[in-house]
Parts: sequence; structure tokens; C-alpha cells
Amino acid sequence: MYKDYSVEKLEELRKELTAEYEAYKAKGLHLDMSRGKPAPEQLDLTIDMLTHCLDGDYKSENGIDCRNYGVLDGIPEAKELMMSMLGVSENEIIVGGNSSLQLMYDTIARAMLLGVLGGDKPWSKNEKVKFLCPAPGYDRHFAICESIGIEMITVPYKADGPDMDMVEKLVSEDEEIKGIWCVPMYSNPTGITYSDEVVKRFANLSPKAKDFRIFWDNAYCIHHLTDTPDKLLNVLEEAKKNGKEDMIFMFTSTSKISFPGGGIACIGASAANINFIKSQMTYQTIGYDKLNQLRHAKFFKNADGLKAHMLKHRAIIGPKFDVVLNMLDKEIKPLGIADWHKPNGGYFVSFNGLEGTAKRIVALCKEAGVVLTDAGATYPYKNDPKDNNIRIAPTFPTVSELTTAMEIFCVSVKLASVEKLLAK
Amino acid sequence: MYKDYSVEKLEELRKELTAEYEAYKAKGLHLDMSRGKPAPEQLDLTIDMLTHCLDGDYKSENGIDCRNYGVLDGIPEAKELMMSMLGVSENEIIVGGNSSLQLMYDTIARAMLLGVLGGDKPWSKNEKVKFLCPAPGYDRHFAICESIGIEMITVPYKADGPDMDMVEKLVSEDEEIKGIWCVPMYSNPTGITYSDEVVKRFANLSPKAKDFRIFWDNAYCIHHLTDTPDKLLNVLEEAKKNGKEDMIFMFTSTSKISFPGGGIACIGASAANINFIKSQMTYQTIGYDKLNQLRHAKFFKNADGLKAHMLKHRAIIGPKFDVVLNMLDKEIKPLGIADWHKPNGGYFVSFNGLEGTAKRIVALCKEAGVVLTDAGATYPYKNDPKDNNIRIAPTFPTVSELTTAMEIFCVSVKLASVEKLLAK
Repeated sequence: MYKDYSVEKLEELRKELTAEYEAYKAKGLHLDMSRGKPAPEQLDLTIDMLTHCLDGDYKSENGIDCRNYGVLDGIPEAKELMMSMLGVSENEIIVGGNSSLQLMYDTIARAMLLGVLGGDKPWSKNEKVKFLCPAPGYDRHFAICESIGIEMITVPYKADGPDMDMVEKLVSEDEEIKGIWCVPMYSNPTGITYSDEVVKRFANLSPKAKDFRIFWDNAYCIHHLTDTPDKLLNVLEEAKKNGKEDMIFMFTSTSKISFPGGGIACIGASAANINFIKSQMTYQTIGYDKLNQLRHAKFFKNADGLKAHMLKHRAIIGPKFDVVLNMLDKEIKPLGIADWHKPNGGYFVSFNGLEGTAKRIVALCKEAGVVLTDAGATYPYKNDPKDNNIRIAPTFPTVSELTTAMEIFCVSVKLASVEKLLAK
Repeated sequence: MYKDYSVEKLEELRKELTAEYEAYKAKGLHLDMSRGKPAPEQLDLTIDMLTHCLDGDYKSENGIDCRNYGVLDGIPEAKELMMSMLGVSENEIIVGGNSSLQLMYDTIARAMLLGVLGGDKPWSKNEKVKFLCPAPGYDRHFAICESIGIEMITVPYKADGPDMDMVEKLVSEDEEIKGIWCVPMYSNPTGITYSDEVVKRFANLSPKAKDFRIFWDNAYCIHHLTDTPDKLLNVLEEAKKNGKEDMIFMFTSTSKISFPGGGIACIGASAANINFIKSQMTYQTIGYDKLNQLRHAKFFKNADGLKAHMLKHRAIIGPKFDVVLNMLDKEIKPLGIADWHKPNGGYFVSFNGLEGTAKRIVALCKEAGVVLTDAGATYPYKNDPKDNNIRIAPTFPTVSELTTAMEIFCVSVKLASVEKLLAK
């Protein structure tokens, strides 16, 4: 454990690590672990969808010509497919276009401009609009808030989800708090899944703002990495028990199932919310791309088809997570300078180093040709108060590239940690 | 000419027309001329795009894997294709998703929430926001304004475009006027194309609001119906001559070239506008569907490919326009109770009956099984002050269906006109 080392030993170690680091740097590598991006082999799994999937057949099961105008909320078979992902009913879903991020952005834009069901005015008519942001979290969620001028309040994570004492207290006291971002399963980046208790407390929030919404981004709902996957309680069903179902907006997509940017996305919500959203959305578009919805429905067929397909993804990316976790276990764990969570699914490993080392580690890696997500990106305003969280995205590089990248990562972690300990 | 008929003759005519009308009604038909919807035969023209178009090839010409994340503004070959439609350069375009309506709505939503280039605050921070609406115009343009609470001011049409004296006067006097809707070529529904003088006057507007924008929806830019198509001056190039290029937002799509709802759409604007829009749009989406962009680029290849393809559409829909125009010429013209414009392209025939008859004609048609666009729909707030404009959309029905529908339309026009003349 580094903390037991003498200054002399640390000084010596620094020299050794610097030499090791410089040797990697000299190789002039270019490796990217910055984004949760599927590898090309994963995209090959759905390649048939791009070719013969629609041969001579372009009608939905209810007879709609998917090549022509119409159908705001999605064709029945695409709804069926995505209902299985979110656990909602036919009248609780809108299947949209190629991006759940866009559905979330548009949902907030509509709330700002027009208001949500049960609100008495658009959010933007308030002097200030605030969101709770459990962190570390998804940088693009926070970026939406920042771009629209929504004030973000950071909420820390506990082992089983956001700090619910804090969430309950804040939403019950402050009417300007209109929403909270959640990635409830295999959370980006922590990898944890909200416990039943956390979900139940979400489903029973009593916000002061009656136009408050929970943005439940269930991006990784079927993205398991083990035979004993996490289980997430259905927040909409729980909320119904409390008569609070209108508080929930759920989202997911096939971006990491079929094609990122070429998949389909959806909103799940109470039937009343869905009707209200459709009444606003009908001015934005005549309908989303039904041909791509049909392609997906034909290719995956049903929930079992999706499930079987996700095993193929797991076979490709599981070994990559193993590389990351095994190397961290071997190289870093004995040194007592960091911790991380072994996720049962999702796309990330969230790494917590010594306080004040994250930026340095990312910089060292970058100099040696390994691009990581910017340190701080997982916090509102890119401000990680402890400067210790780094999001590792193992899926895109090959196993061999990843191994090299993790070697560089580990030596960078050690070097930055020794520097930190010596500076004390 | 009906106006020369005696009351007795009109009374007799009413009986005859009523009998004729009742005979059609008894047939129990169901015919739809309500929307500008391509016929199934037109959709068959691009059917190969749905199947083998991407066989084994999913990289853009600059090496991007179109199956994965990235590229906010479109792949180069899709840009190239759509640049030819709008007449803009590489840095003056964003290729988006499946809907130009959505790009327009989102552009207004961003202007409301965030503001446009050169504005000192979001539009929504003004007490009131107004748009000029040349009418008759596209109902979905007006619906966007209405849904967002933008006040609409109707501007009448002249033979060669909107009344520019009125446009110039209003925009120069009223800072709350932030935009104007234009369908400059084969206008929806009038079918006229703006004259060079009108385009030049648009390109040289001096609005009081420095964050004023012209929404130039060039939906029918290559949708010609004759060998001597209309020509439209390039408004962006004209505006550059006056240093006013930032005032223009252009839009178009392939909705009526490939597939409605399954096509690709774009925004054209000055490079400065495009950069500004991208800086806002990057929070809404990681990128639009590049696979569909690639499909379109591979299928149409280039501007010549598009041009050749549009001849195939013309071969299908040209005869339908002929049915409408020939029957109007034969049945209605001699009676002096209506006028219309023979369009050289686009999707509509705009019919002007006697004042106060449009609602009645549409109702009569509906009762006899022919669905037309609602009377008034082509005006802001659905309020046609003269109640005389009807939009005829001939493309979707077969020639035989259309012939029957037009027979019913003509008898309904005659009957409503006789009723009107008798009521005077």
C-alpha cells in the first residue's frame, strides 16, 4: 500500500514509474477509450438489417405503408419490441427516431416552451429552473441542462443509487426543481443498479413543483454482462401504486443494440403523459422513420430475439471488461490508491483514484496516446469536486489495444498517485 | 356564367345539381385528396433503396463507419446531394433526419429558447413574437407558430409571390416580427414560384429586429411537372450581395423524392449561421441517421440522378394534375364561379371559389365520401377571411379514383355556388 511507503521509497518509485511511462510514450500509440461506442464487430451482428430485411415487405402488421406519411407514435411491432425493454403498455409508449438523447432534449425543450401535463405554465416562465444531477453521471445529460440554462444541483451517489434523503428533501422544499436525471440500471458511469428501495422512494417523491419530472434514462436495461444480471424495479408500476405515475418519463434506445445513430428510441410514460406529449409533438413532426422501426421489428422479432441478440454483444464486450477489471485488480488494488465497481452490465467502469489525481491521470494517458473521457466530464459543469473520478469505456478498442491502453492507464495512475503522495 | 342566371334558372339548377350530387353520395365512396401524399407507385420507384443498396458497404466516402456514433452535420456524399437541391456550399448545409418540418420546428424552438446568431436574447424573452404568414400557405407552418404561441400576421399573395410592399413595411416597423414563412417554389398551395424581383426584395429586407429570419421552405425545388419548369433565384446568393446572408434559413427534404417519413432533410444557411446552429444542435443529438443518408447518396448518386428520378415521379403524377385541371377547365371555368393557377410543379392545385363557399364545398364533398383538406387550413388560425380557398392534392388517388373525386368536387362546387347566389 502506497500510503505506508516512506518518502524515499516513493521518490525511488517515481523514478521507476517515470521511466516505464516514458517507454510507453515513446511507442506513439493512438488508442481511444473516451466514449461508450460499440466495436465494429458488434455492428456486424445486425448487418442483415441493412440489406435484405425489408425485401418486398414494407407494411406494418396493421397494414400501414411504412414508406409513406403518418403514424406519430410508432408502428405496433416497434412499440411491442420497445415495450418489452421498458416494461410499459401499448398506450404508454412513443417510438421515435434514431436518438433517445434527442427525445430527452426535445422533452425538456417542450417543457421549457410549452409546459408539461399538470403544470400551469411553461418551465421557462419561472425565474429559475433547476435539475438534480446524481453524479458521477452521464455528461450529455448535464450538457443539455447547461446549454438550456437549467441550474444543476449535484447529488452524490450511495452504493445503491443517488442519496435519496437529499433528493427527497430538496424536491419537497424547492419549487424551482423541475427534474432529476437518472440512469437507473448499470448507471453511466458507476455501473450500479438502483435498489428496490431507491426505486420505491423515487416512485413516491412528493415534489413541491407539481410539474416536476423524473428523467429515467434506462439506456442499459438489457445490456447485461453476467449470468446473474441486476434486476431493476419498474418505476412506472411503483409510481402507479402511489397515484404518481405522471411524474415519470422513461427513455431507452437500440443505439447499443443495433446501430448508434441508426437505431430507434422511445419514450415511456403514463397514458395521460403520452397523450399530452403527442398533442405537443404533432406540431414538430408528421412521424418518425417507420421504415427503420419496421427493420428493427423484423430483425429482432420480439423480446426473446432481443435477449438472444444481447448475448452476442456480451460475448464480444465481456472479455474487454475482464481485461480492464483484471488489470485493475492486479496492478492497482494492492496499492490502496483507488476503488471501482465491477458492473454486471452497461458500458463503463467508473474509476475513483486518490483525490486530486483524475485530471493528471487523464493528461498522462493523453500524452502517451490513450484518450479517456475528460476528467470531470461525469459531473455537472465538468466540476468533479474531488477530482478523482474517471470513466473507462472498454468496448471500442480491440482486446489487444485495450490491454496496452490499460497498461498505460495503470502506470499513469501509479505515477499520478505517487506524485500526489509526495506533494503532501 | 352563373352570375347572369335568373333566380328561377338557379332554382331549377339547384334541383338538378342536388339530384346529381345525391346520386354520387349513394355510391358510398371513400376517396382522399386531403394531403400532399405520394402514391404507392411513386414509392415503388425507390424500393431498391430499402434492400440491396447498402450490401456490404456502410462507410462514407471519407471513411466514417455510418453504423456508429458521430458526424453532427451529415456525411459528405449526402451533403453533396442536398447542396445541389438548395444551391449551397459544403459549409452552408446540415443534413438532418427524416423530416424538414422537424428541422424547422427545432430551429424555431432553439430561437425561442436560446436565440439566433446576432440576437441579444432568446426570442421567448420578448413580450411577444410575431411571424408574417403569406397565405394561402402551408398549414403545418402556421400550426408550428400557433402551438408555440407566435402571433401570426397574414400577408396576401400577389401573382408572383407575397405582397412585398406589405412585408417590407411590416418588418421594418415592428421589432416583434422575428420571421416569415415562405414556400418560394411551386408554393403550397398556390403553385406559384416567386419572381426574381420578389426574391431580390426578400434578400434585401431591412428588418427592425436584428434577429429576424426568413424561413425559406424550398420543399418543391426539383418537383417539376413540365418541360419548361419555373426558375427560382437563389435567395442566399442574392442576400450575400447585400451582406444580409445571415437572415436566411433554407430547408428542403427528399420526402417527396424517396420516402415521406423515410427520407432525409436539410438546413441551408450562411456558414456563420450553420456554425452557430451546430453549436446549439450538438446538445440535442450526437448525429442524425447516417445510414439513411448513405442509402440516399448511393441510390441517387448526384444531382443528375435526382433530376432523372424526378422525371419518373412526373410521369406518374403529371396525368393526375391533368385530370384535375382538365375537369376544372371543362366543368367550372365556363361558369365564372372560380379561378385557379395551373402549376408547373409541386403537389397542389389551389382553388378559389365564390366567397363564402369553401367550407360548404368541403362539407358536401365529405358527405359524398371525398375528403379534402379542411377549408381554411391554408390560412393562419384556420381563418380564411373570404372562405373561398380549397387545396386540392391530386397525387395519392389513382387516376380513376381522382376522376370520380373531381366529378364530385365539381358538382359540389356548382351546388354550393348556386346556393350562394340564391342566398344573396
